[in-house]
Amino acid sequence: MEVKITEVGPRDGLQNEKRPVSTEIKVEYIRLLVKAGLKHIEATSFVKKDAIPQLADAAEVSAQLNWNHSVQYSALTPNTKGYEGAKKAGYKEVAVFTATSETFTKKNINRTISESIEGFKEIFRLAKEDGIQVRGYVSTVIDCPYEGRINPEKVLEISKTLLDLGAYEISLGETIGTGVPTEVERLLELLLKHIPANKLAGHFHDTYGMAIANVEKAFSMGIRSFDSSSGGLGGCPYAKGAAGNLATEDLVYFLEKSGVPTGIQPDLLWEASAYMEKAILRELQSRTYLATKKKKEA
Amino acid sequence: MEVKITEVGPRDGLQNEKRPVSTEIKVEYIRLLVKAGLKHIEATSFVKKDAIPQLADAAEVSAQLNWNHSVQYSALTPNTKGYEGAKKAGYKEVAVFTATSETFTKKNINRTISESIEGFKEIFRLAKEDGIQVRGYVSTVIDCPYEGRINPEKVLEISKTLLDLGAYEISLGETIGTGVPTEVERLLELLLKHIPANKLAGHFHDTYGMAIANVEKAFSMGIRSFDSSSGGLGGCPYAKGAAGNLATEDLVYFLEKSGVPTGIQPDLLWEASAYMEKAILRELQSRTYLATKKKKEA
Repeated sequence: MEVKITEVGPRDGLQNEKRPVSTEIKVEYIRLLVKAGLKHIEATSFVKKDAIPQLADAAEVSAQLNWNHSVQYSALTPNTKGYEGAKKAGYKEVAVFTATSETFTKKNINRTISESIEGFKEIFRLAKEDGIQVRGYVSTVIDCPYEGRINPEKVLEISKTLLDLGAYEISLGETIGTGVPTEVERLLELLLKHIPANKLAGHFHDTYGMAIANVEKAFSMGIRSFDSSSGGLGGCPYAKGAAGNLATEDLVYFLEKSGVPTGIQPDLLWEASAYMEKAILRELQSRTYLATKKKKEA
Repeated sequence: MEVKITEVGPRDGLQNEKRPVSTEIKVEYIRLLVKAGLKHIEATSFVKKDAIPQLADAAEVSAQLNWNHSVQYSALTPNTKGYEGAKKAGYKEVAVFTATSETFTKKNINRTISESIEGFKEIFRLAKEDGIQVRGYVSTVIDCPYEGRINPEKVLEISKTLLDLGAYEISLGETIGTGVPTEVERLLELLLKHIPANKLAGHFHDTYGMAIANVEKAFSMGIRSFDSSSGGLGGCPYAKGAAGNLATEDLVYFLEKSGVPTGIQPDLLWEASAYMEKAILRELQSRTYLATKKKKEA
């Protein structure tokens, strides 16, 4: 496939859902995502059980995944203990998470940026020994809810640090969905002078309806890896109830209609989202998901 | 202003709303839109009273508008009788409506395309005499729900016919929201060879979440006139409950964050939409509207 889609619904999508979702439902949801054709799925996060109760069953979910499959599962690992958990569970890919804004990083993971990176060094060292790939999330790449506009140089610095440590790809998190294509362009113009396009991924949020326009801009500049969440699962933590992650349905719609094959079957993807919608008992917000739903109801 | 925004909420937005909205509420809604800074507002449609019951009070709404203002109100006029009504009401701009697809035109206005254009000739003739501007809507410019993909040559042909008859601007209606930027680009590449950019407007729907990406593409090709509906008011008639018109809030957010001044005050625009949301008793679907609402609730 010309593009890589990393499905983050089971992790990024669920972590802000208040209503507890059972291990069984999560496993079935992931099974349906695999059935729909997704090849890269971030399945869970190995965090302290009390930090994100929704993901406290990381080991249990992982134990029930179908590992005999051509799917690359990954797990978020905030520290070495989490890494060990993910490794034990069988992951061949883990992800580490930091941001460009000190305030955001402090509030989100209670560390400074450099403390967060310092903490990842052991993960990178172990992962190299273990033959496990590490993906680096860099959040708030355009705007920060606390510090406002972010200097692209800061994004470059942190991205390069993570790549130098051994990250195989940097997922650029436009965390609060306030960015527009001209800002994405300005950021990528700088990054692409120093980092090859195939080491960067776009992680956009649709809070203000800008996600697809930002994907289009990034795609036009050579980016071929995008994160999304089925149904648009996952709210924006800074505006509860507003749209969060770019929906996989909208991304797949955009790519396929633009002539870029994704290998994903829209009807089966829709079924995976519909399955989770029943479990969380609130309407998903993907435009394409909703349009499909209304058509089915008609 | 560098851009022209035509607010179509009171007409295109309301015409598919089942719940009757009183004349009083429509007038107040338009007053709030004016207060927010909108300068081009399509206020109503002079159709047969039984054709669109929601807009049967076109004359009454128009009589209560504040005409002593720097706002260009317009009204849709499907025939000469409608034109006479709009003229009597004081409009200095009317709009005529056709499409590129025979099946769509037949189902929508029960005429062939050439019959529809034949019917407009008298309107164009009278409007010229009366010093009234005529705007031409050309619908289904990318895809038709019945005929599928539309040949850009067909869009060019109909647009040129309306311009030759005297239309000052063609609003290109991407009626079902299925188009993507590459398709918008292909269409505009052809049109702009024959029609100056300042005679074209983009009218996008957000059914699949593509509207802002399409605006961005059209803007990058020189288009500076866009239609939108406050709050995203107006469903998609082909998938009830799904998103319809591009929301003015999302358009204004996109433009302002991109450094393009609109003259519109987002907070006041939000209030106009919130006012109408109460009247129609269903949640509006603009991403920016919703994010703002959730922030206000927080």
